[in-house]
Amino acid sequence: MRLINNLKDFHLIRTCPDSRARAGELVTPHGVVLTPVFLPVGSQGAVKTLSPEEVKDTGIAMLLANTYHLYLRPGIAVVEKMGGLHKFMAWDRAILTDSGGYQIFSLAPLRQVSDEGVIFRSHIDGSQHFITPELITQFQERLSADIIMALDECPAHDDSFEKVQRAMIRTHQWAERCQKTQKRNDQALYAIVQGGIFPQLRQQSAEYLTSLGFPGYAIGGLSLGEPKKVTLVIIEETAALLPENKPRYLMGIGSPEDIIEGVARGCDLFDSALPTRVARNGAFFTWQGRHNIQNAAYSQMEQPIEPDCDCYTCRTFSAAYLHHLFSCDELLAYRLATIHNLSFISNLMHKVRDAILNGTFSSFKDNFLTNYKPTDEQTRLNQKQRWLKSRDLGE
Amino acid sequence: MRLINNLKDFHLIRTCPDSRARAGELVTPHGVVLTPVFLPVGSQGAVKTLSPEEVKDTGIAMLLANTYHLYLRPGIAVVEKMGGLHKFMAWDRAILTDSGGYQIFSLAPLRQVSDEGVIFRSHIDGSQHFITPELITQFQERLSADIIMALDECPAHDDSFEKVQRAMIRTHQWAERCQKTQKRNDQALYAIVQGGIFPQLRQQSAEYLTSLGFPGYAIGGLSLGEPKKVTLVIIEETAALLPENKPRYLMGIGSPEDIIEGVARGCDLFDSALPTRVARNGAFFTWQGRHNIQNAAYSQMEQPIEPDCDCYTCRTFSAAYLHHLFSCDELLAYRLATIHNLSFISNLMHKVRDAILNGTFSSFKDNFLTNYKPTDEQTRLNQKQRWLKSRDLGE
Repeated sequence: MRLINNLKDFHLIRTCPDSRARAGELVTPHGVVLTPVFLPVGSQGAVKTLSPEEVKDTGIAMLLANTYHLYLRPGIAVVEKMGGLHKFMAWDRAILTDSGGYQIFSLAPLRQVSDEGVIFRSHIDGSQHFITPELITQFQERLSADIIMALDECPAHDDSFEKVQRAMIRTHQWAERCQKTQKRNDQALYAIVQGGIFPQLRQQSAEYLTSLGFPGYAIGGLSLGEPKKVTLVIIEETAALLPENKPRYLMGIGSPEDIIEGVARGCDLFDSALPTRVARNGAFFTWQGRHNIQNAAYSQMEQPIEPDCDCYTCRTFSAAYLHHLFSCDELLAYRLATIHNLSFISNLMHKVRDAILNGTFSSFKDNFLTNYKPTDEQTRLNQKQRWLKSRDLGE
Repeated sequence: MRLINNLKDFHLIRTCPDSRARAGELVTPHGVVLTPVFLPVGSQGAVKTLSPEEVKDTGIAMLLANTYHLYLRPGIAVVEKMGGLHKFMAWDRAILTDSGGYQIFSLAPLRQVSDEGVIFRSHIDGSQHFITPELITQFQERLSADIIMALDECPAHDDSFEKVQRAMIRTHQWAERCQKTQKRNDQALYAIVQGGIFPQLRQQSAEYLTSLGFPGYAIGGLSLGEPKKVTLVIIEETAALLPENKPRYLMGIGSPEDIIEGVARGCDLFDSALPTRVARNGAFFTWQGRHNIQNAAYSQMEQPIEPDCDCYTCRTFSAAYLHHLFSCDELLAYRLATIHNLSFISNLMHKVRDAILNGTFSSFKDNFLTNYKPTDEQTRLNQKQRWLKSRDLGE
């Protein structure tokens, strides 16, 4: 491993000859993170159902927490007083905090946006709050994550061109204000490219933000209900406009098949609540696709649900036991499924990276997508809508 | 440690000079269990929220599972096919299965009791079932626990003398039938003394069951709503009537203060869902009594909730973090509280045993009860009623 002389460094190690996939190293104050990398979601300072040791054991190198959630509960001052987020949640690997832009625009009722900032009501107790790019940056400095995000305005996937354009321009202004506010030099502040499903706006956004010179760039505002083909085109076009030597973070995307597509289009970081959320509904990732443990076929199966898997869950328990725990709503069930799904994704990311390093990513991708039966798009959209409606607000 | 030549052996090591407290060793096919011992409840084949490794780490040597629950879900045949309960739940220490008598009489609607057995409807799906002492014994042989329990009829705490007497006589007949049915010689079958709050019936029950010669005796039908003073008198009188050289198992009693009182009256085994159930409501055991983590005083406390405790929870997290997890209903909260409470009880049982061995149990007991502020009786009764009504059926 090379000498680490800049905590914001990102080193490209190898690029795939047949696609835009890249393998890299992202240097953080809490360790070097090998990319492509998947970040599980621990919005409220915990990856749902898991202890920090368990998250580590699944091979996860960095997780995501959320400024919006932590600001409302327990409050920035409490986390700061407890020594920052790493110490508070007993996690000594890297953390990225999202700015909370997406959450304010998707969870909080009665928000009022102005150029100055956003007034919103808490989804928890209805209390009113006013935040600005300056405040969000200061909050994230006090939370002490390794990577922090600029505040963005996230439009709905079916908003008009004009509305999306206005949100994009505001996102640019806010990114600049976040950049000017930043005082700490041991955190990397990433900007978020917006522009919805309009290639012209995505291009403007990428160019403008790139001109400001951030240590990393996120692609936001995708996978919000638009058709998957559109998502992939926008990812491909946007990623191609971002600097080669900076990490690219594809926000909110995290099914195994979508991660692979994102990697192929040149993205390096991925986060999503999907692997942990579907786990709590009994969906286990396998190399053939998602399998639901509640299926009667598992009720008497002595094998683990994925016989080749070496995660704690598969090493220790039969599929029949997992089926039983889910039947009984035993809380242990959700944990064992979460351990499996995060181990699966970690393992997948390692295989993806090895394939890029070996120059075999394209065949790995084809092979994976041939065997892995994705959840069909209508089911995905229905699940997503159910989830958004049920307001599973912790993630 | 002495030579183990009988898997049903119970060795008395020392008796307290000032009380009836005893320290012993209970030999099982899954290890020697030091008594007095507390068994956490894992009715459905899991101690709620914990993995088997975590249960072990708290120092627990034996746990309780429930024939009623496992018969309904996943079914006796499934557990048997998976290699028995130990293998099914990946627990290699001792297990005691309750016969399910108490559950049938407290959870199942529309039960009909005859001398032959019980017809009841499942609390899960309303399906109708008929069980007999013979069947319950065979079920427990197939589940493969180390200690199994005779089927008993458990009357309500305010039933009439005549009703309690009839249930007792039936319990005696059923115990005899269980004994005759037993084929395996590597499981110890314990009988359950009934007789409600009537000393005369308790005496008859103890004498009758003792005459049949079981390797252990339980005291059932207590802590069901009768005043605590009555409970203690019945425990004291009943335990005194049971053979000195056999283990005595006080069923369903498990608050720290009640366990100490039970030990002082000569009981060796204790089980209760209380330590794990109150944990999930945010109540942490401390040497001063139960403290609720949701109290605002904990919201900014950097210390662990019990600074002297060496459990995983207290070693790793501040009280403020636990307070936050409970505020957010993060599932990890319930687990961390459960780990703490079981560690506390394990630790307490070790201290109790050491005190008996050192001849200082009486002063240990006085000291403990002086510092430990028990939940007042009205609150206890209210909590118990709320729990029974809410039908938290998993425990």
